[in-house]
Amino acid sequence: MKPEFPHKDIIDPDQFSKKDLETILSTTEYLITLQKQNKTQNILKNYLMASLFFESSTRTRLSFETAMLRLGGQVISTVGFQFSSISKGETLYDTMKMIEAYADIAVIRHPVEGSSRIAASAVSIPIINAGDGAGHHPTQALLDLYTIYKEKGTIDGLKIAFIGDLKFGRTIHSLVKLLTHYDVEMVFISPIDLAIPEAYRKELKKKNIEFEETEDIKAFWDCDVAYVTRIQEERFVDKDEYERLKNSYVINKSLVLASKKNTLIMHPLPRVNELSTDVDDLPNAAYFRQARYGVDVRMALLCLCLKVELPDI
Amino acid sequence: MKPEFPHKDIIDPDQFSKKDLETILSTTEYLITLQKQNKTQNILKNYLMASLFFESSTRTRLSFETAMLRLGGQVISTVGFQFSSISKGETLYDTMKMIEAYADIAVIRHPVEGSSRIAASAVSIPIINAGDGAGHHPTQALLDLYTIYKEKGTIDGLKIAFIGDLKFGRTIHSLVKLLTHYDVEMVFISPIDLAIPEAYRKELKKKNIEFEETEDIKAFWDCDVAYVTRIQEERFVDKDEYERLKNSYVINKSLVLASKKNTLIMHPLPRVNELSTDVDDLPNAAYFRQARYGVDVRMALLCLCLKVELPDI
Amino acid sequence: MKPEFPHKDIIDPDQFSKKDLETILSTTEYLITLQKQNKTQNILKNYLMASLFFESSTRTRLSFETAMLRLGGQVISTVGFQFSSISKGETLYDTMKMIEAYADIAVIRHPVEGSSRIAASAVSIPIINAGDGAGHHPTQALLDLYTIYKEKGTIDGLKIAFIGDLKFGRTIHSLVKLLTHYDVEMVFISPIDLAIPEAYRKELKKKNIEFEETEDIKAFWDCDVAYVTRIQEERFVDKDEYERLKNSYVINKSLVLASKKNTLIMHPLPRVNELSTDVDDLPNAAYFRQARYGVDVRMALLCLCLKVELPDI
Repeated sequence: MKPEFPHKDIIDPDQFSKKDLETILSTTEYLITLQKQNKTQNILKNYLMASLFFESSTRTRLSFETAMLRLGGQVISTVGFQFSSISKGETLYDTMKMIEAYADIAVIRHPVEGSSRIAASAVSIPIINAGDGAGHHPTQALLDLYTIYKEKGTIDGLKIAFIGDLKFGRTIHSLVKLLTHYDVEMVFISPIDLAIPEAYRKELKKKNIEFEETEDIKAFWDCDVAYVTRIQEERFVDKDEYERLKNSYVINKSLVLASKKNTLIMHPLPRVNELSTDVDDLPNAAYFRQARYGVDVRMALLCLCLKVELPDI
Repeated sequence: MKPEFPHKDIIDPDQFSKKDLETILSTTEYLITLQKQNKTQNILKNYLMASLFFESSTRTRLSFETAMLRLGGQVISTVGFQFSSISKGETLYDTMKMIEAYADIAVIRHPVEGSSRIAASAVSIPIINAGDGAGHHPTQALLDLYTIYKEKGTIDGLKIAFIGDLKFGRTIHSLVKLLTHYDVEMVFISPIDLAIPEAYRKELKKKNIEFEETEDIKAFWDCDVAYVTRIQEERFVDKDEYERLKNSYVINKSLVLASKKNTLIMHPLPRVNELSTDVDDLPNAAYFRQARYGVDVRMALLCLCLKVELPDI
Repeated sequence: MKPEFPHKDIIDPDQFSKKDLETILSTTEYLITLQKQNKTQNILKNYLMASLFFESSTRTRLSFETAMLRLGGQVISTVGFQFSSISKGETLYDTMKMIEAYADIAVIRHPVEGSSRIAASAVSIPIINAGDGAGHHPTQALLDLYTIYKEKGTIDGLKIAFIGDLKFGRTIHSLVKLLTHYDVEMVFISPIDLAIPEAYRKELKKKNIEFEETEDIKAFWDCDVAYVTRIQEERFVDKDEYERLKNSYVINKSLVLASKKNTLIMHPLPRVNELSTDVDDLPNAAYFRQARYGVDVRMALLCLCLKVELPDI
């Protein structure tokens, strides 16, 4: 079985068609079945992945490395400060030409927006963007999408709330973009100062996706999914405003239990205090399962980018 | 062959019964035989170990990673400063829930006492404590125990000296605890200010284990084993006292050759100057062999915690 | 097939006879053929390499780790600052005795000249010097030699230019030493202040190798190979002199196209501005291919030091 996938790289959520998303979701499902049958260990045998983290992101790095190893592949790895040649003034282009000589695929995390696109154009091996500064983090958005699909059995027809910092939250922006391919309704819950940017509102209107904006945290009660993110103090010019707001946007057990639709609670993690630990034991709490789905989705992306044949189920 | 082992985790030397210790020693022996027969390479195939070093300990980390790789397993690894999510305020509980999604077993080194127990209770995968602050370092104690057993052919009946900083020496405390399960005699050799704490003296008396305390370094001459540790300058309030003592506690070749029982010299390493390099070539010098036994014992612990079937000899 | 190789370690370019160099070149060729036939993946199965980088060198570390993994071997890895035991005062000798307990072969990068030789004499496992301070970096010289051989089909009869900092350039010194085993002609192009040291001129004369020295960059036009290195500002006492010279030693496309012998352009990388990116697309530009040859040559060195049998072609 070899799924059709027209991309060399994973750079940006905008690159995917609806069909691509369906392929990613179904390949993830397929790989989960293969894992249960102990059939993944030779899929990427003899393939080498370079894990290039020009800035630290332990969660993402370990998730990708786990995915590669579970597929029987191998990993060479490096984190930020270790790039001695960068400190000698080497360009990303030159670094990538070197990596191309070593690895069959590379995962790149970089503080500068757009750098993963530069990396991808420098080399013929597949490049996966694991976050580039204020830019995108497409694999996070894809695992969020898969989490919704896996936990709810569908994406179409759902009403999805986004809570917290919707202005700067990169993971939310990327997920919103992916969800525009589906028949969903969105609820944006945030302080006015942290509202979703106009560009996204425009795009939703253009695609006829229903959405509402509110400051009222309780608006998630009639949603199927609530995607919670942190409100960062450093985003506020007016610290009194932050103090006033910070406790309004804390999701705790009693709030979750009051929801009418048994709302699924998601969070990209790490959390600080915007999501109480008393939610953890509720079946609604999907955020730790999200971490596991992250490995599954990344396994699918590695296979898709490398265009390998998958074993039969 | 599947040894009986009632523990999920390795946290604390107090957790082991005499029977557990016997199982660990015999499983280590068994694995050494399997290694000679080239039969270890598939034992942990498809198992993934997370190597989580919230503080650096290269020796211990490489020992565990070697053990895992020699068993055919795979490793994801991270050291201290790299835990970017920790610096964002993530709790150890949340970090471990993430790791549980990735790995089948985790080895954890952490600066805070008790953290490995917290980690173990957070997750269903086995956790091995590789040292938690002023707390325990049980795998070091187990490899010390195995070294005595392997080199002397027995533990019962031995007279064992401990030399150096017996007050703060974590490895000595843990080893003393394990040895209380055996019929041994102990000799504690240290400056008075660095004597073994009262709690240990009490426990030894309660268990009817004979011991003596002395400042005289020569007391190891009629011991079967001498376990040497460093006297750290920073432990002394009175620096003159340190200057007076530091040279009294240096084990060198002539001292070792004067021993009446061909005393086995052990040291947890790294050493500084409390153990002269002229001892290295004596057959008594067991400390470099200890490093190799460390890998063997950790292989056994990985197998025991993961409850895997071992191949026949 | 088991090539004859009389060395345990790779420490210094001076250790090799002409026959050794021929063995290294032919074993590299052989491994490239095996790779094309997918026959390298079991050659170092069950072998473990310790990657010990007491200082950062990402390029070299990843090259060695890739080589080991492509041969089916396993890697334990550590970089500089992580050597916690070193910071506690451990000697390199003791560190290596520990590593010997873990690994079958070790690659060592260390800031102090001569340290790889100390490491090699401490242990019975093979040690490969991956650069020791102002000392040697023999694997770089060997991959440079292989690059010339591979790209030109021969080494004998070639005229080879060295451009840039010939006084302090370690890679150039090592390569010059290796080339004295061949029938070549050399052209040293540098500012007078950065001329090749007298010791090398003497050796070349002694071995009757023809060479010329010049400040004129155009002297590479009738050479078969030009090995370009950086001129470092910090080497100049007189900064005006640096300003005057720095632009004279920039290799760009028009300079390369003016060469009469289609000169092959090599560079150890990373480059800064001494080699323009407009050269990259010329077939003459060998420097990115050098990186790939680096993996091949290191695969050969690992096999040769470990004295393993190679599969038939």
